[in-house]
Amino acid sequence: MDMIAFDADDTLWHTEGQYQDAQEALKGILTPWAEPDDIDIHLNQTEMLNLSVYGYGTKAFVLSMIETAIHLSGGQIRGEEIEKILGLGRNMLQAEVIVLPHVIETLQTLSASDRLMIITKGDLLDQTNKITRSGLATYFEIVEVVEDKTIHAYRHILDKYRLNPGTFLMVGNSIRSDILPVLALGGKAVYIPADTTWAHETVPDFDRAQAGFYELDNISRLPDLIQDIISSPPTK
Amino acid sequence: MDMIAFDADDTLWHTEGQYQDAQEALKGILTPWAEPDDIDIHLNQTEMLNLSVYGYGTKAFVLSMIETAIHLSGGQIRGEEIEKILGLGRNMLQAEVIVLPHVIETLQTLSASDRLMIITKGDLLDQTNKITRSGLATYFEIVEVVEDKTIHAYRHILDKYRLNPGTFLMVGNSIRSDILPVLALGGKAVYIPADTTWAHETVPDFDRAQAGFYELDNISRLPDLIQDIISSPPTK
Repeated sequence: MDMIAFDADDTLWHTEGQYQDAQEALKGILTPWAEPDDIDIHLNQTEMLNLSVYGYGTKAFVLSMIETAIHLSGGQIRGEEIEKILGLGRNMLQAEVIVLPHVIETLQTLSASDRLMIITKGDLLDQTNKITRSGLATYFEIVEVVEDKTIHAYRHILDKYRLNPGTFLMVGNSIRSDILPVLALGGKAVYIPADTTWAHETVPDFDRAQAGFYELDNISRLPDLIQDIISSPPTK
Repeated sequence: MDMIAFDADDTLWHTEGQYQDAQEALKGILTPWAEPDDIDIHLNQTEMLNLSVYGYGTKAFVLSMIETAIHLSGGQIRGEEIEKILGLGRNMLQAEVIVLPHVIETLQTLSASDRLMIITKGDLLDQTNKITRSGLATYFEIVEVVEDKTIHAYRHILDKYRLNPGTFLMVGNSIRSDILPVLALGGKAVYIPADTTWAHETVPDFDRAQAGFYELDNISRLPDLIQDIISSPPTK
């Protein structure tokens, strides 16, 4: 491979659990005004409506939590409660980065022979801070924080670094963001499901039989898989 | 020049005025609890304290406005008031991009003979959206949104695109962010003051006599200045 690219959140380290924990705490704050299920639905709708203005990431999530709290309380919630929501966001932005099992040894193995990069979306500062806090920065030649993981965004990265899609492999936990756009460009993609995945990132009718798609239940098998891919005849 | 790089906010289009308008509106919202001057001071302190966690950009500014409102009201401000603050941020993120005078013709002239890029900080989605809305995207070969404009950030960009500092020129309205780090790397920098500049970006004791530094009161003189720089003997 000319380049092995990794998603970061829930591929290299835990993240989605933090979002879910914050969402649980929000339900506690909004107990006087709304039922837990309604809070989930309202927050998810708010996030989707705000996506084109706020983008992805923790700051967008905090702003959507505040908006949800105001709406569900009919504007009655007070500043001291909203301050708790700001605190949930601040905790997320400063939380310890818990690297997933087998990530370090896998990156050690692969970085000895291959060029590695990170492609992630979210807040610029938050993502670069997390890469630093994770201790994994040393394994990656390039870090790209993008506003959304579209076909256009991947094509732009391939062009910028003069990478051939046929020798580009992306590893991630989101069929929507890490797998589909890369396959569409003729690249290879390895799907490693996370314990929990944001509903927005799931694709129910995805075809697992198509060329270039691979699935692992564990990142530790990635070096062997890449050897298999290199030594197997081209599929086209 | 191998590359002419431009700051975006208040170099290519108006921005700081929007921040100041939002800050004025915040004073209106907080009238029951605080004096205008105290609001300015408290908001600025909050922004500085949050910089390492929230970074630069509109979403960070909105979160700092909300925090300021909560603190100055002693937690008493209600959701319906905070919703107005969210609205101020949303307006900033969706505002018409007003390109500064002479920018379009200057970029037309320069892009005919030189490679141009944008180096800006702030929210990834907000900045790329503004470049699109400005209608100026066509003039720029590269857009880099960085978390902060440090020497390290500029060196990273120079390395990434294999640019020689001696033939790299940066144009911007912030001595702190656009000028000082570029001069430190041996590049050239053109300072074009904006009508209004955030206090955080000013540098009182800046030495205007140093090599590589130029100042214009208007972007329209940039092509002539670049001709002068190219045809003058090296200053070192």
